[in-house]
Amino acid sequence: MKLVTFEVSTPVGPFARIGALTDADAAIWDINFCVARSLALGGRNAPLERADLDAPADMIGFLGLGSAATDLAADAIGRAGEADATVWEGRRLRYATSEVRILAPVPRPPTIRDFLMVKEHVENSFARLPADKRPPHSIADMARAPGHWKGNPRNVFGPGAEIPYPSYTDEFDYELELAVVIGRPGRDISVDQAPEHIAGYTIFNDWSARDIQMEEMKVGLGPALGKDFAFSIGPCIRTADGFDPVTAVMTAAVDGVEWSRGTIGDMLRSFPELVSWVSRAQELQPGDIIGGGTIANGCGLELGRYVPPGSVVELAVDGIGRLENRVSAKPESSNPSWHRG
Amino acid sequence: MKLVTFEVSTPVGPFARIGALTDADAAIWDINFCVARSLALGGRNAPLERADLDAPADMIGFLGLGSAATDLAADAIGRAGEADATVWEGRRLRYATSEVRILAPVPRPPTIRDFLMVKEHVENSFARLPADKRPPHSIADMARAPGHWKGNPRNVFGPGAEIPYPSYTDEFDYELELAVVIGRPGRDISVDQAPEHIAGYTIFNDWSARDIQMEEMKVGLGPALGKDFAFSIGPCIRTADGFDPVTAVMTAAVDGVEWSRGTIGDMLRSFPELVSWVSRAQELQPGDIIGGGTIANGCGLELGRYVPPGSVVELAVDGIGRLENRVSAKPESSNPSWHRG
Repeated sequence: MKLVTFEVSTPVGPFARIGALTDADAAIWDINFCVARSLALGGRNAPLERADLDAPADMIGFLGLGSAATDLAADAIGRAGEADATVWEGRRLRYATSEVRILAPVPRPPTIRDFLMVKEHVENSFARLPADKRPPHSIADMARAPGHWKGNPRNVFGPGAEIPYPSYTDEFDYELELAVVIGRPGRDISVDQAPEHIAGYTIFNDWSARDIQMEEMKVGLGPALGKDFAFSIGPCIRTADGFDPVTAVMTAAVDGVEWSRGTIGDMLRSFPELVSWVSRAQELQPGDIIGGGTIANGCGLELGRYVPPGSVVELAVDGIGRLENRVSAKPESSNPSWHRG
Repeated sequence: MKLVTFEVSTPVGPFARIGALTDADAAIWDINFCVARSLALGGRNAPLERADLDAPADMIGFLGLGSAATDLAADAIGRAGEADATVWEGRRLRYATSEVRILAPVPRPPTIRDFLMVKEHVENSFARLPADKRPPHSIADMARAPGHWKGNPRNVFGPGAEIPYPSYTDEFDYELELAVVIGRPGRDISVDQAPEHIAGYTIFNDWSARDIQMEEMKVGLGPALGKDFAFSIGPCIRTADGFDPVTAVMTAAVDGVEWSRGTIGDMLRSFPELVSWVSRAQELQPGDIIGGGTIANGCGLELGRYVPPGSVVELAVDGIGRLENRVSAKPESSNPSWHRG
C-alpha cells in the first residue's frame, strides 16, 4: 500500500487527510471515510467516531496503530472500489490525484535521524575533501558504532514544495536517500522485532549546504545549519510488504538530466539493525524518520558539482514514486557571515 | 523570577502546573490561578478562561507570551501575597515547596541543542583522548561556524529523578552546563533582538557515556547514543532580569564531594549570538533549550574519572538553584554490544 497525506481545498479552509494511492497512483482513496463507510455497512453505530479510533485521518495517528490499521484500510478501500462508491454520507471517498495537493506523508515528523550506511558514498565524498577537512573515521568505525545525527523536523517539505536556498551557502546540494518511517512505538527493540515497528519506506532528500556543513563537521558535533534548512520526504510511504529496500532502483535528476542512479545495496547495517540501534535507551514513536544515508554517487559532492539556484531536483525510487522540488532563487541578502573570524 | 513546573497529587490523579518560587525558594505560587484571581478582582468575566489565555498553566504556553506573561504573573503574585491569600474559589494559590514534586521546568522541550563554547573545556577534554580519537578541529573553527548537535527531548529528567545508567557504557559522566530557554518564537533573529527571545536560564546536565560517544564522534556526525539516554534540566528557569550568565558561580558535586567549580566566563560566542545563529533559516519555538557547553573542568572526562553507578550528582548555579539526580545501578543486562566488529 502507498500511503499519502493530501490537502483538500474547501470553502471553509484547507483540510489534510490521509489516503491510499491506487490505479498507478492516479487515484487517492480517503482511508478514514472508507473505513467509516465499512463500519456503517457492518451495522456499527457511530461509524465516523469509530473510524477516528481505528483509522485516524492523520498519518502519525494512523501509523501508530501498526498493521491493524493498514489491514482495515485495505479491506475498506477494496469494498468501496467493488461498489464503485466515490461519495458516502456527503463525504468524498475517492479523488483523482491531480485534484488535490500531496503533502509530505508525515507533515511534521517527531524526529529525523540520518545515518551514513553506504560505504562507497563515504569513500567518494571524503576523497573530494582536503585532508584537513576529513573526519578521522574509518569504515570499521562506522559499522561498529553507527553514528548518526538528528535533523530539524520544523523544516520538512513535501513533493512540489519550493526549497529555500539558504543565504549562507554557495554550495547547495541534494542527497538521494531512502528512509524508514516508524509505525508502532517501542523502546529497546531487538533486530528481530524491528520489522514490526517499520511502517514503510519513503524517499528522503537531505538537502545540504556543503561549505558550512564541512566547517561544522570539523568541530566534531556533526552537521547543523549545513542541513537543517530543509528536508524533503515523499511522495508516499510504501508499506514494507512487497518492497525490497536493498534492490529498489533509485535515481536523481537535476533539470531533467540524470545525475545519480543506483541502489542502496548492502548497507553497513540493515534498516532493522538501525531501528534496533536507535531504540536503545530511547523511545521510538510513530512518524519518526530514519535515513540510511546517501547512496553511492547520490549527491553533487561526489560528482564534483552543485545544484544551481532555481533548479528542479527530482528523486525517484522504484516502488515508491517521484519526489520533485524546485530550489528557490538565491536570496539577495545572501551573506555567508559564518566566514567571519 | 524563578519559574518552575510542579506536580500536585490529587484524588483524581496528578496535575502539572507552573509556579514562581519565592521566600528563598521555600514557597511556590500557582501563576495561572493568581492571575485568574487578579482578573476576577478587577471585575473581568470568565477569569479562569482569560487566565488560560494570558498566563497558561503549562510552561511552553506561558513562555511563548514573553515578558507580557511574566509581568502579569509578578503583579498577580504580588497582590496575592499582600492579601495573604492562599486559596481562591477553591483553588490553591500557594504551596510549600516541600509539599509538591518539582518537575523539569519544561517537561518535554521541543528541541535540545548543545554547543561547545568554553575553550578551556575543549582543550582539557581533547588532551585526554588518544590522538586518533580527536576531531580535527581548532578553536578558530569552533568560533567561526559554531558546531552544535541536537539531543533527544524524549529523555528529559527533572530534579530528583533517577537517571538510568545505560547498559552500553562503562564510562558514565556528567556535564556542568548553563542553557538558555527560548520564550518568544522567531526566525532569522539578529544578535540585538536575541535577548527578547531568551526567556531565561536553567541548569543543564548533559549526561554522557564517554566510550560510545567517542566512537560515534569519530564518524563525524556527532554524539548520539553517547548522550541521548538522559538530559537533566532545572530546578527552575531564572528569568534574564538581574541574572548574569557569564559570572554566575557553577559547581558540581558527586556524593557530596565537589568535583567542579567555575563560571562559563568568556564564551567563544555569547548566548545571544548562539540564539541568532541557530535561528538562521530555522524557527525557534518556546521551550527550546540551547546549551552553551560544559564549563572548564565541568565533567569527569576532564578530571580523569567517571561517575559510579548509584552516585548522587548535584549541579548548582548561583541565582538558579540546585539540580540533584541519583544515577541508577548498572543494569544486570549490561552488554555494550556496540563493541562488536
